[in-house]
Amino acid sequence: MSSDFSRPSGRAPDQLRPVTLQRGFTRHAAGSVLVSFGDTRVLCTASVENRTPGFLRGTGDGWVTAEYGMLPGSTHTRVDREAARGKQGGRTLEIQRLIGRSLRACIDRKALGERTITLDCDVLQADGGTRTAAITGAYVALCDAISVLRKRGDIKTNPLFGAVAAVSVGVYRGVPVLDLDYAEDSDCDTDMNVVMNDGGGFIEVQGTAEGHAFRMEELQQMTALASVGITQLIELQRQALESVTA
Amino acid sequence: MSSDFSRPSGRAPDQLRPVTLQRGFTRHAAGSVLVSFGDTRVLCTASVENRTPGFLRGTGDGWVTAEYGMLPGSTHTRVDREAARGKQGGRTLEIQRLIGRSLRACIDRKALGERTITLDCDVLQADGGTRTAAITGAYVALCDAISVLRKRGDIKTNPLFGAVAAVSVGVYRGVPVLDLDYAEDSDCDTDMNVVMNDGGGFIEVQGTAEGHAFRMEELQQMTALASVGITQLIELQRQALESVTA
Amino acid sequence: MSSDFSRPSGRAPDQLRPVTLQRGFTRHAAGSVLVSFGDTRVLCTASVENRTPGFLRGTGDGWVTAEYGMLPGSTHTRVDREAARGKQGGRTLEIQRLIGRSLRACIDRKALGERTITLDCDVLQADGGTRTAAITGAYVALCDAISVLRKRGDIKTNPLFGAVAAVSVGVYRGVPVLDLDYAEDSDCDTDMNVVMNDGGGFIEVQGTAEGHAFRMEELQQMTALASVGITQLIELQRQALESVTA
Amino acid sequence: MSSDFSRPSGRAPDQLRPVTLQRGFTRHAAGSVLVSFGDTRVLCTASVENRTPGFLRGTGDGWVTAEYGMLPGSTHTRVDREAARGKQGGRTLEIQRLIGRSLRACIDRKALGERTITLDCDVLQADGGTRTAAITGAYVALCDAISVLRKRGDIKTNPLFGAVAAVSVGVYRGVPVLDLDYAEDSDCDTDMNVVMNDGGGFIEVQGTAEGHAFRMEELQQMTALASVGITQLIELQRQALESVTA
Amino acid sequence: MSSDFSRPSGRAPDQLRPVTLQRGFTRHAAGSVLVSFGDTRVLCTASVENRTPGFLRGTGDGWVTAEYGMLPGSTHTRVDREAARGKQGGRTLEIQRLIGRSLRACIDRKALGERTITLDCDVLQADGGTRTAAITGAYVALCDAISVLRKRGDIKTNPLFGAVAAVSVGVYRGVPVLDLDYAEDSDCDTDMNVVMNDGGGFIEVQGTAEGHAFRMEELQQMTALASVGITQLIELQRQALESVTA
Amino acid sequence: MSSDFSRPSGRAPDQLRPVTLQRGFTRHAAGSVLVSFGDTRVLCTASVENRTPGFLRGTGDGWVTAEYGMLPGSTHTRVDREAARGKQGGRTLEIQRLIGRSLRACIDRKALGERTITLDCDVLQADGGTRTAAITGAYVALCDAISVLRKRGDIKTNPLFGAVAAVSVGVYRGVPVLDLDYAEDSDCDTDMNVVMNDGGGFIEVQGTAEGHAFRMEELQQMTALASVGITQLIELQRQALESVTA
Repeated sequence: MSSDFSRPSGRAPDQLRPVTLQRGFTRHAAGSVLVSFGDTRVLCTASVENRTPGFLRGTGDGWVTAEYGMLPGSTHTRVDREAARGKQGGRTLEIQRLIGRSLRACIDRKALGERTITLDCDVLQADGGTRTAAITGAYVALCDAISVLRKRGDIKTNPLFGAVAAVSVGVYRGVPVLDLDYAEDSDCDTDMNVVMNDGGGFIEVQGTAEGHAFRMEELQQMTALASVGITQLIELQRQALESVTA
Repeated sequence: MSSDFSRPSGRAPDQLRPVTLQRGFTRHAAGSVLVSFGDTRVLCTASVENRTPGFLRGTGDGWVTAEYGMLPGSTHTRVDREAARGKQGGRTLEIQRLIGRSLRACIDRKALGERTITLDCDVLQADGGTRTAAITGAYVALCDAISVLRKRGDIKTNPLFGAVAAVSVGVYRGVPVLDLDYAEDSDCDTDMNVVMNDGGGFIEVQGTAEGHAFRMEELQQMTALASVGITQLIELQRQALESVTA
Repeated sequence: MSSDFSRPSGRAPDQLRPVTLQRGFTRHAAGSVLVSFGDTRVLCTASVENRTPGFLRGTGDGWVTAEYGMLPGSTHTRVDREAARGKQGGRTLEIQRLIGRSLRACIDRKALGERTITLDCDVLQADGGTRTAAITGAYVALCDAISVLRKRGDIKTNPLFGAVAAVSVGVYRGVPVLDLDYAEDSDCDTDMNVVMNDGGGFIEVQGTAEGHAFRMEELQQMTALASVGITQLIELQRQALESVTA
Repeated sequence: MSSDFSRPSGRAPDQLRPVTLQRGFTRHAAGSVLVSFGDTRVLCTASVENRTPGFLRGTGDGWVTAEYGMLPGSTHTRVDREAARGKQGGRTLEIQRLIGRSLRACIDRKALGERTITLDCDVLQADGGTRTAAITGAYVALCDAISVLRKRGDIKTNPLFGAVAAVSVGVYRGVPVLDLDYAEDSDCDTDMNVVMNDGGGFIEVQGTAEGHAFRMEELQQMTALASVGITQLIELQRQALESVTA
Repeated sequence: MSSDFSRPSGRAPDQLRPVTLQRGFTRHAAGSVLVSFGDTRVLCTASVENRTPGFLRGTGDGWVTAEYGMLPGSTHTRVDREAARGKQGGRTLEIQRLIGRSLRACIDRKALGERTITLDCDVLQADGGTRTAAITGAYVALCDAISVLRKRGDIKTNPLFGAVAAVSVGVYRGVPVLDLDYAEDSDCDTDMNVVMNDGGGFIEVQGTAEGHAFRMEELQQMTALASVGITQLIELQRQALESVTA
Repeated sequence: MSSDFSRPSGRAPDQLRPVTLQRGFTRHAAGSVLVSFGDTRVLCTASVENRTPGFLRGTGDGWVTAEYGMLPGSTHTRVDREAARGKQGGRTLEIQRLIGRSLRACIDRKALGERTITLDCDVLQADGGTRTAAITGAYVALCDAISVLRKRGDIKTNPLFGAVAAVSVGVYRGVPVLDLDYAEDSDCDTDMNVVMNDGGGFIEVQGTAEGHAFRMEELQQMTALASVGITQLIELQRQALESVTA
């Protein structure tokens, strides 16, 4: 890293944006969390239904799934409303599949019983990293929904084992950096999204060369950075879940 | 009204819910207002594009249109995501057509010039009256977007003439009441949405008998109540627009 | 009204177009009525199925619903076939929801039993007021379908309570007028569709300011005019239902 | 043919149903014909637009195309509205492609000029043979639309060369019969739709074995019968076109 | 036929292209046949499912159906992928309906039992006659799938009665010719697809005049030619089915 | 690795399945390659069009994109045809986006000029690793298409810089293994798809924990294995491209 390297935000290479996790942002869903990674703000709600998709019916297993959307006014240039266009785009499907897989990695579906928890992650304001913010916030909403089920006595055993959080990393002007914002994301060489659990294991690693193919050592630097960031995010999740909500 | 009549919320028959209009709720759209009518919260953003729909191209006229959606977790029971279902339902189309018509009623489209302002009204939390809150909030977002255009010098003449706001009225247990919340809405005899301008004229009147057909005098009582409520809403819009935003 | 006011059709302000209700226009549906309001002609058929939508299954209640369409050649300029475009437009959905709500307002769904009556309203020729003609004609088709069910012994108690009809009113060149045709509709200041029952109660009131916002006294004049027209329409429905069909 | 053979309708094997061709059935389209083949009634309208599909643009050629639909109440059991289902079924597409091809076979597209004539064929009542009735009626509507264009001076040379009509034939209980109605159609061994021109040439031959594979001599008998019927239909078209319409 | 008539391929008028039927082309489906008619190559697989469509449920009858598609790169100019466009076109639906009807003509659906065999016909390379190649190849795949069911003991009685094959015929430069390739197909006066069984009976005859209406004697010449070709195709099917597969 | 570890296929942990790259498999597309990774067979065609998507028009840049599909009969249990279902699923969109990104990583879009090359990757037979086989085969098809363009003189400078290939790796019963087949894929703890170029750089890394979260050293072992396999695949691509095709 040359001495005059600087990120557009002035952050250190290994520095997260300010992160907030506001529980109880809305009141009807069993869990409702407004997560902010800097200017990226995603509303994550967790809704419970007492049925499962067809392929699970009768197995006793539960299901956790996710849907993702961007409000049309959340970006610099208005994005089309997918409901009006009549279908969800490839990027949306890819992201919501990622969120669902990530959260299922910390759930004992047998202990959940025959019910579905849907995590809706809607981006109110986008500034890079919406999918990683969504995973990080959705985990907290999922915890709140499960608390509701346990208080009601619907679930005996805690189906959650461990925490899950996500962060992006990349190579920006030759330097590995943590938690890319939009200015970096649109101008970096490599973009990687990493999902990890609180045991330090990888759930998902998705890296894409944008400008130039990345080398093994860059891969290692990026995953190490991600690990640092996710440790902090999991601590923030823990603090948020310990606080009392309205 | 019998002496023991009471609304679920304890409000007087002609009393609005607490109303807030938070400007600048998000930062990318030209206008962004979070409007609350009690527990109903709708995010209204106004986005500007320098083109108009095909039927207007070359006429020099501008266009104002609206899109409406409910976040899946905004209601007591999760609603399907319309983008995932692959189409917008009849209720959604009906509401967004209403919002668009209402706001076009206060705009000189010639003065706007060949551009489109889209008002996206997304319900974060639903407790009755989402369409009337959306119209009331979208008007403020529209004003902010037009201010941006005027500051930039894109528009010479102010295309806005007058203000527009909306409120619901109904007959609840025999008594005409203002601004129905969900508890009243799901249990009332008649439900009417009224859109008016600041000159006291009606833009839209949409009344539906739910339980029993309503009489002429009920129609008059309801429209009179609506007029009282809208006068207050237009004053609240005026105050919000005079305040300084971040 | 100035002395030289005249409607394009030469009608008096409170005069309906010639109305006909031809029962038994086609033979397969349980009810089939060709309704004409002047040059507006709508074929309304009522079909009976022995099942109800999912949300009613097992409740013992019946359902009445409507679908609306315009034949592509029914208008001056050919309209797209919605089946070919792959979806029904917002206007279509809005109208068919209105027709369905209006007819459910005169039906005891418990007495109907677990069956669905679908009113298909297809516009053969459009000259303004297609939705009000559709409601007025569909009521007669609904009566015929119910007669069939009663003759077969499928229904014991008459599920119909009262009649329903609809008419448009508007302010044309400053004068409130009844039953707008296309020439008036495309050139009026206010357009209102009113649905009433034979007890003089309002089922639906939908008024839209086209050119200028309308005042309370205009609202009252228009609803009074509508009441006059609907009384005549309900009498015409009664006469049609008393006549013998082929 | 055994001596006790009889058709459900009592017709002779080579006898058409009563055929009517009512021109000017509606007034907005350039051509509008209600065609009846017995109880089968199809409204055929011809609409003119001054543009052609993309693949013809700039070639100077015109286009003739068709769309087909069945009103939901036109059959014994209500059929789904294709606009509501969100797509046209395979049978519909097959029929409208057949109608379009058939009518293009009598049109000089160069002489038509860069315009499109769309034939909308909507079945008001179905009793077998809707596609052949549609072709026969659409030809008359097409003639009327072309007359309008010629009267306006939009077309110099008559683009029509020859007439086109269609009829079904089949083998019913071992006997070749002309113009199958629904009772025969649903109980026959072979069903064939034949489109011919007034020169006795075949435009389309579509035969399907329903119960047993048909032999060469049956194919010849059926096409001969079709030829007899189409000669009569073309004479009826000629008479209809010579009559004066309102 | 003038002495200097020649087909683009140099074939005699009554000569088929080289035909191959390669069984076991893929291994997962119960039947899998790569059929070639010259350069036209279609992969036909037969898959078995132990359920039938809704309209057959509980009747004890089985079902045979077909789906057809062209790979985007199978033609000279890339064709759109129908999955990406979001719907199957009219031509596709027409062809797959034809394939399904043709194969059902040689199946005793009662003997098949409550199961569905789906014939997927995917064109790898197109050079005219894809639908007739598909029918001819799908018959062999169907036989293989039924053999699997019989070997497993799932079916007691052979549900197949007779063989089915198909070929195109046409009038090319005034001469009736057998099995049109693309060069002929795009330049012929008449195009006819004929499906026959091994008893010499017609299952389907679909003839379309492209350039000029065809006469009765041409219809007879073409069907006679088709009969000659189909006899050879059925012999090739028999040989393929007698050979041993990997 | 315990001494009794064995893969279902008997392969060594770092052993690829037999790989073939058959060029010129079909003849209409500019490039056409049938790639096999063991029993997985994917037909990759490259088609050239002289236009680019809207967002590139006028920039002088070209575009490379991909579409992916599975033939319904390619798998053990028939998969639905996406064209019939009316949309491509999330998995399909994800895979075709991956293929497109991977191939764009070895193309100088400026040198390609204003044209689009579409890689259609259709799975004829699936046995695990279809997306990595598709990328590996599509690269060869892309090279052939570019050769065609260069021979025609349409392109002056070679737009290809370097080769791209892909392989899957995973942890199967505790042991990192290369190129998973279906038996391993459906029973492994971690599944990772890796795309690399011939300079040893990573283009894409997509790893998903299936059973347990993977550790940093497993990530390194897997990427190292992938690197070994891709080196071999790129050599096989080179050999295939040097051979002469029919």
